[in-house]
Amino acid sequence: MIGIEDIGYYIPAGRVSNYERKVKFTIDDNFIENKIGIRRISVKGAEEDTSDLCVKAFEALEARANFSRAEIEALVVVTQNPDKNIPHTSAIVHDKLDLPEGCACFDISLGCSGFVYGLATLEALMSANGMRKAILLTADPYSKVVNPDDKNTALLFGDAAAATLVSDNPVFVSGATTFGTIGKDHAKLAVNDQGQLFMNGRAVFNFAAKYIPKDIRLMAQKNQVTIEQIDRFLLHQGSKIIVETIAEKLGLDPGKVPFNVGDFGNTIGSSIPLLLQEELAGSANLIAISGFGVGLSWASSLLRRVQRP
Amino acid sequence: MIGIEDIGYYIPAGRVSNYERKVKFTIDDNFIENKIGIRRISVKGAEEDTSDLCVKAFEALEARANFSRAEIEALVVVTQNPDKNIPHTSAIVHDKLDLPEGCACFDISLGCSGFVYGLATLEALMSANGMRKAILLTADPYSKVVNPDDKNTALLFGDAAAATLVSDNPVFVSGATTFGTIGKDHAKLAVNDQGQLFMNGRAVFNFAAKYIPKDIRLMAQKNQVTIEQIDRFLLHQGSKIIVETIAEKLGLDPGKVPFNVGDFGNTIGSSIPLLLQEELAGSANLIAISGFGVGLSWASSLLRRVQRP
Repeated sequence: MIGIEDIGYYIPAGRVSNYERKVKFTIDDNFIENKIGIRRISVKGAEEDTSDLCVKAFEALEARANFSRAEIEALVVVTQNPDKNIPHTSAIVHDKLDLPEGCACFDISLGCSGFVYGLATLEALMSANGMRKAILLTADPYSKVVNPDDKNTALLFGDAAAATLVSDNPVFVSGATTFGTIGKDHAKLAVNDQGQLFMNGRAVFNFAAKYIPKDIRLMAQKNQVTIEQIDRFLLHQGSKIIVETIAEKLGLDPGKVPFNVGDFGNTIGSSIPLLLQEELAGSANLIAISGFGVGLSWASSLLRRVQRP
Repeated sequence: MIGIEDIGYYIPAGRVSNYERKVKFTIDDNFIENKIGIRRISVKGAEEDTSDLCVKAFEALEARANFSRAEIEALVVVTQNPDKNIPHTSAIVHDKLDLPEGCACFDISLGCSGFVYGLATLEALMSANGMRKAILLTADPYSKVVNPDDKNTALLFGDAAAATLVSDNPVFVSGATTFGTIGKDHAKLAVNDQGQLFMNGRAVFNFAAKYIPKDIRLMAQKNQVTIEQIDRFLLHQGSKIIVETIAEKLGLDPGKVPFNVGDFGNTIGSSIPLLLQEELAGSANLIAISGFGVGLSWASSLLRRVQRP
């Protein structure tokens, strides 16, 4: 039985305040606190590359969890902001962590749906190949591609990385996962020819509001649980308003739907593992996770607690 | 039972002759014919991007195989030369092929080991999630990153794409797959700060000559077959000399180890599916596949015939 054993993460210390950009972007406190829900965004140091964020998240995991580097049989980095395109960032992380020769490494290119996809993919690969310990890294520093003068993106995205230990000693195991893609809308959230991020915020919001509630219902059905039976809904933390909108459409108790990114922003693939770490020692037994964004893409799954850490 | 049902591919018509570059690179016919074994390299049109190569390979598959686009539940693109980094190329291909909303899409970033990794990953994901038909695309046009004045790379790499239909009606099913990474040597084959490919050919050759024969032995052992029982060895077509060296180290009959890239070059992740297509209606029942390169990374697997197409 393969699943999530533990999670470590790294959020760089650098911050840019959205309050200090109220005049520049003609926004007010209500917009900051109630619409996007992001007061400050985290920004990595200029000397830190994506692999460095991965290493720091891994070290945070190592400080919590009981495993050795020699046991790691696979390492996957989910990113669309790699150190470079050749080689994959996972090979660079493999080098920096001095991992074993027999360790499978690859990157998955996905954005905000990447943790859910990556978890399903890595768990399946491990089960099919008898692997017992692997690491899923999410690290997508959007500061590399965000134009600081672009109101649609500059207020939202924060840099972070998360390292998830997937093992045969899980706290949570995954159920059936649902996936989807609206490729025809890929240009609504994409880098432009200058390598800078473009986002049609309205289109991405409408996409999430339309597809994610029904996908979570479908996912619950496939896992033979009712929405009411699920203790926690860890939604990709795109903005406060999108999380609240999805929760409302599903008729959820707001206490079941945390939003925790006010101090660092939307960290792409890391937003769900950052939420999930808090649940490891918590009371929730059934947890829905749902990621959505670049692609446009989504995936949802159900985690069942099988032990307390 | 999930495995490979069919394969289509696309090799752009453009060619650059290595004979015409003998003076420029101070090479002779013996080097071209016996060492690298590559007489011409294929080059995509300037107007073709990676997703276009994918679409053409997919259309070639569609012309051979019996499936409809509406049935495709997952599409994976293996590339390190995506159209752009955000979004993933698979989302763009999803758009261009107008695939269903419920289709899972992601890219895997790997080089010459990518087909073997991608196949193992996609098959595992499909089995774990009850998917019946999916497409594995390999498309890594190195003409985007090769410096045409660099003798170490300009003579070797060709542009191509392959589309593999992975389904519940397989011709070949995979056995146990072996994986490995030597991250500490990642800089031996990488893009530089100018975005151009650097390769230490000697180091990459030595890596493959050292690790691949022993990995194929390990893979055979894990699959409980002897090297002698394997009918065909489809090795990544890095160059004639590396394929021959691995074959020699394993003591293989050269007739079991095809080399078919003289007219288009080393097509990275596509080199194994290009070889494998010829085997679909062939006589081989047990086929070893082994990819190796960027990372430095490798993976090997065993395909068993379960039907004739």
